[in-house]
Amino acid sequence: MGKTLAYKILENHLVEGVLAPGNEITMKIDQTLTQDSTGTMVYLQLEAMGVEKIKTELSVAYIDHNTLQTGFENADDHEFIKSVAKRHGVLFSKPGNGICHQLQLENYGIPGKTLLGSDSHTPTGGGLGMIAIGAGGLDVALAMAQGTYSLTVPKVLKVELTGKLRPWVSAKDVILYVLQQLTVKGGVGKIVEYAGEGVKTLSVTDRATITNMGAELGATTSVFPSDENTKAYLAAQGREKDYVALSADADAEYDEVLKVDLSSLVPLAAKPHSPDNVDSITNIGTIKVDQVAIGSCTNSSYTDLMKVAEILKGKQVHPDVSLVISPGSSKILSKLAENGALASMINAGARIIENACGPCIGMGQSPKSGAVSLRTFNRNFKGRSGTLDADVYLVSPETAAISAVTGILTDGMVSGVTLPEIKEEMFNFNDNFIVYPKGTDKSNTDVVMGPNIKPFPQNTKLPEIVTGSVVLHAGNNITTDDIMPSDSRLLPYRSNIPFLANYCFEKIDKDFSARCKEAGAGVIIGGDNYGQGSSREHAALAPLYLGIKFVLAKSFARIHRSNLINSGILPLVFDDPADYDDFALGQKLVIENAREQVKNPVILLKNPETGKEYKAISKFSEQEIEMILAGGRINQIKDNE
Amino acid sequence: MGKTLAYKILENHLVEGVLAPGNEITMKIDQTLTQDSTGTMVYLQLEAMGVEKIKTELSVAYIDHNTLQTGFENADDHEFIKSVAKRHGVLFSKPGNGICHQLQLENYGIPGKTLLGSDSHTPTGGGLGMIAIGAGGLDVALAMAQGTYSLTVPKVLKVELTGKLRPWVSAKDVILYVLQQLTVKGGVGKIVEYAGEGVKTLSVTDRATITNMGAELGATTSVFPSDENTKAYLAAQGREKDYVALSADADAEYDEVLKVDLSSLVPLAAKPHSPDNVDSITNIGTIKVDQVAIGSCTNSSYTDLMKVAEILKGKQVHPDVSLVISPGSSKILSKLAENGALASMINAGARIIENACGPCIGMGQSPKSGAVSLRTFNRNFKGRSGTLDADVYLVSPETAAISAVTGILTDGMVSGVTLPEIKEEMFNFNDNFIVYPKGTDKSNTDVVMGPNIKPFPQNTKLPEIVTGSVVLHAGNNITTDDIMPSDSRLLPYRSNIPFLANYCFEKIDKDFSARCKEAGAGVIIGGDNYGQGSSREHAALAPLYLGIKFVLAKSFARIHRSNLINSGILPLVFDDPADYDDFALGQKLVIENAREQVKNPVILLKNPETGKEYKAISKFSEQEIEMILAGGRINQIKDNE
Repeated sequence: MGKTLAYKILENHLVEGVLAPGNEITMKIDQTLTQDSTGTMVYLQLEAMGVEKIKTELSVAYIDHNTLQTGFENADDHEFIKSVAKRHGVLFSKPGNGICHQLQLENYGIPGKTLLGSDSHTPTGGGLGMIAIGAGGLDVALAMAQGTYSLTVPKVLKVELTGKLRPWVSAKDVILYVLQQLTVKGGVGKIVEYAGEGVKTLSVTDRATITNMGAELGATTSVFPSDENTKAYLAAQGREKDYVALSADADAEYDEVLKVDLSSLVPLAAKPHSPDNVDSITNIGTIKVDQVAIGSCTNSSYTDLMKVAEILKGKQVHPDVSLVISPGSSKILSKLAENGALASMINAGARIIENACGPCIGMGQSPKSGAVSLRTFNRNFKGRSGTLDADVYLVSPETAAISAVTGILTDGMVSGVTLPEIKEEMFNFNDNFIVYPKGTDKSNTDVVMGPNIKPFPQNTKLPEIVTGSVVLHAGNNITTDDIMPSDSRLLPYRSNIPFLANYCFEKIDKDFSARCKEAGAGVIIGGDNYGQGSSREHAALAPLYLGIKFVLAKSFARIHRSNLINSGILPLVFDDPADYDDFALGQKLVIENAREQVKNPVILLKNPETGKEYKAISKFSEQEIEMILAGGRINQIKDNE
Repeated sequence: MGKTLAYKILENHLVEGVLAPGNEITMKIDQTLTQDSTGTMVYLQLEAMGVEKIKTELSVAYIDHNTLQTGFENADDHEFIKSVAKRHGVLFSKPGNGICHQLQLENYGIPGKTLLGSDSHTPTGGGLGMIAIGAGGLDVALAMAQGTYSLTVPKVLKVELTGKLRPWVSAKDVILYVLQQLTVKGGVGKIVEYAGEGVKTLSVTDRATITNMGAELGATTSVFPSDENTKAYLAAQGREKDYVALSADADAEYDEVLKVDLSSLVPLAAKPHSPDNVDSITNIGTIKVDQVAIGSCTNSSYTDLMKVAEILKGKQVHPDVSLVISPGSSKILSKLAENGALASMINAGARIIENACGPCIGMGQSPKSGAVSLRTFNRNFKGRSGTLDADVYLVSPETAAISAVTGILTDGMVSGVTLPEIKEEMFNFNDNFIVYPKGTDKSNTDVVMGPNIKPFPQNTKLPEIVTGSVVLHAGNNITTDDIMPSDSRLLPYRSNIPFLANYCFEKIDKDFSARCKEAGAGVIIGGDNYGQGSSREHAALAPLYLGIKFVLAKSFARIHRSNLINSGILPLVFDDPADYDDFALGQKLVIENAREQVKNPVILLKNPETGKEYKAISKFSEQEIEMILAGGRINQIKDNE
């Protein structure tokens, strides 16, 4: 039986375990990346582990989330990360260089390598034929410290591409179509592997758009073959030497297959408020648009922005539309400045903001009350834009640009405008935004910690009896945005858990934080797909700080489940989902004989007042059990020293 | 006796009164400008007056202050201003177009015309030979409604320029030198008029830098002659038709004269925390720099940024420096994109942020804790950067750029780098960021008010007995920043006085707002130059909302004094400054027979507990008396209807 591309790369990196779906394996990690909003915590943890020199081939610390700097906190975080990076052998990418995923793709990504990143959109690297996985910050700290990462082997879902996209239909529409077919849960426990004749019609940045937004499927990662297009992309970055051809065996067998005929796709949009709420632009109809935002790690490549520039050239942004563009990297911005494309955008009336995540993570450019905002981003969760009653539609750059001109949601295919083909151009390597590490002599470099940087909370050993009262009864698809909001007001406090914790679950229940503090020990009841969305471990650390002992839900999103275990909080799954309705606020729950029970695949919980018992599926791996007993990952590592 | 240029222009616009220092006159206003942070209040007032069509030749509503949009409030303000502008015949400049003063200079400024703006840096227009005055928002609303503005005729101070600046010394150093000589109070009650052979060595944007920052002298405005350089600048903007030659008579007599030999100037910096705390770079020495910020209405012209680009070309920004650049207008940014200058900046490692006021008003790019930040801006008040313990130095673009490369405060004259001369280039007119009004039929256009836009507070008629207790005993040089902080956190609430008032005087006394609410009626004791700095009328409206009845100070800054009177709050000056020490918190003060007393040049106040009397100089003009009796300007207008 032939091998899938995903398993070939995993096999090459296998350190421990047997490579078969459902097994726990440990794999070698070649590269890591962090961004600043998760990064401060990662490097605090790295420091706590007493690591001298990182064990990866390459690790980069990017600054792309908190670049507005509306107070001293952001710049203090940047300085802290710069100082730690210098000390431990990590490259530091200064603010202004661009978005981590775009930069990693351009400058450091190598086909067949593994990449672990403390950002859920790390799978962008899959566009270059990497196994690139988003993980909690602690996992990334450990990957730097030990050079490895443990995970449950995912199944492999093949997306077989045939045909060729028509003009005005682009990579964004491919992943929107896949999301429509598979939903935001469709990728859970899977690697999505793209194959078929259609692959060669897509450039590396097209592929990166697709693997990037594969995160919204809940997939472990997504991956494309490495072929002539990959070679051309690497050559354009001056890195042809990094090219290696990679593909699945012709007779590879997959766990599932989804067939997509590229030729049949039309311009799509994800309607409010979920990335899988997809329909065609034509079906949605001509709604009036107030804001258009182009950029983000999903759609800010050179090609994407060149298309936008060509569409805007000689035209005027509609008077009622605010069009804002944030290029993906300094190299791209510089190129657009050199070739006149940026001037075309500005002359049409586009606002140019800094190369950074910006509006995609709610850091600026919140639309007006009740606005319709078209965005080329990857998530349209309610309130993520910073405007609670805004309706955000996720679209391709082409759809965004033409709609900015017409002032209404527009299907470019019927616009009568001809879209020119854009060729990838040669880029000059520029590392003027990179600060290189100084070696490993710690005495060389002090770590600089501003007053807003607080130590991260630590759990204690799992007690014999775990008890807590229900402090929240949450619905389905709770996102990490819901758990630990990450808007422009709170992002500057990513290094300060005690402060952040005051806002935990704020959007769902304003009293949550106060209730936890009163309860002392809390339990959260959740629905399906609990903890979807961003990889932020703050969604585990704030509950830890607030005394949450376990979360009992119908199902968990992968990264958040890991983050909970890393913090020593038990993620438990209802054996009988109907039990979900049995719980109310204030109700006590207890796990007796907890240190023994966690070793079992099923745990018994009890309501101490009524005596009623509940079964919860735990199915922790041996590693996970060890962590839970120790009270989290850091404690486990300390115990093993 | 020959006439000064300033008086020639005033004479051409005289509507009422006699043009002599100290007299009150009413002058015709040709143009107005507003920005968004003062603008929402201006247009609320315009609406309240029931104005149909504005009476100026041209009025423009710019959006340049609140462009970060970290919540819905900013975009709601933009929408409100756009809708009101459309309704009343005002041009609307969309966010992304750039900074109001730069845009007004480029696109609309005309030598010999008058301009009133709700921003203290409106005198930028003086670089084009305009009488351009910063005023409170209400004054600007009235200027739109009535086409006039009343003021006390200032004296005229001549700055006689001889010689020519050497390379690495620029217009910024001229105004820094003037500030060093005259201090931040040196221009109070004066128009600063530039003359002499040295004038012709300065371009219009050089001159605009000087008149812009003349605001820091406390001057009513500053003005340059209109000559061949003016013609060339207007021609470059495609507006040669707007040129008219203007200068003072050869035998004009001035109230004061300051001589400046341009040839003898060296690169200067204003040290923390005042624009007049000026010394030479050489004297200050080689301090390590953490941040460099280039832009603002003072130094973001095409020429300024071209010099920066030339200095950065082929070099690297120092690894420990965050260099951030915000060009002044979309036209400038577009030009820099076209000619490769922007690419030079980016390739060197500069961060490019949106064309807007941005970091100059503390909206973003706050430096790290304890940072040294070099800024090409106009104010370095403590905390204005958003980082309370940062040390901000105000420098020229040349000094900023070379220091960004070296990482230390650097005098370019000794750097060994040759600075090329930059020529003004031809610009293409582009009004794609401008929304034109729809005529005056109100039924055409609804005014759109988001939930954060609240009505402005209104005073009541002056009672017979004015009484209040001392709620603050403040020192000298209290700025409007001190009175009503305007940082990134509060700027979004400029349309919401009840919310803002909670933060009134917050930096000086956290309990101020609560104390006022408890006192019911309050009195503020101030030192010299009370209310200097920004023109924001929020520094009067928040105290009005909090029940402040009068401010008793050693002296007042001009615009703030007007704003207080407009709000019906009495600005009173100690007859004997020694009385200042006689007051303490909680002490009651009463003005008996107040409605009669305000008509006198001196008012008697009494401490009702001790019976002790104090004399305060009021010297209100007849107009001012009428306003104070009515309880502020809006009430007065309503009374007259």
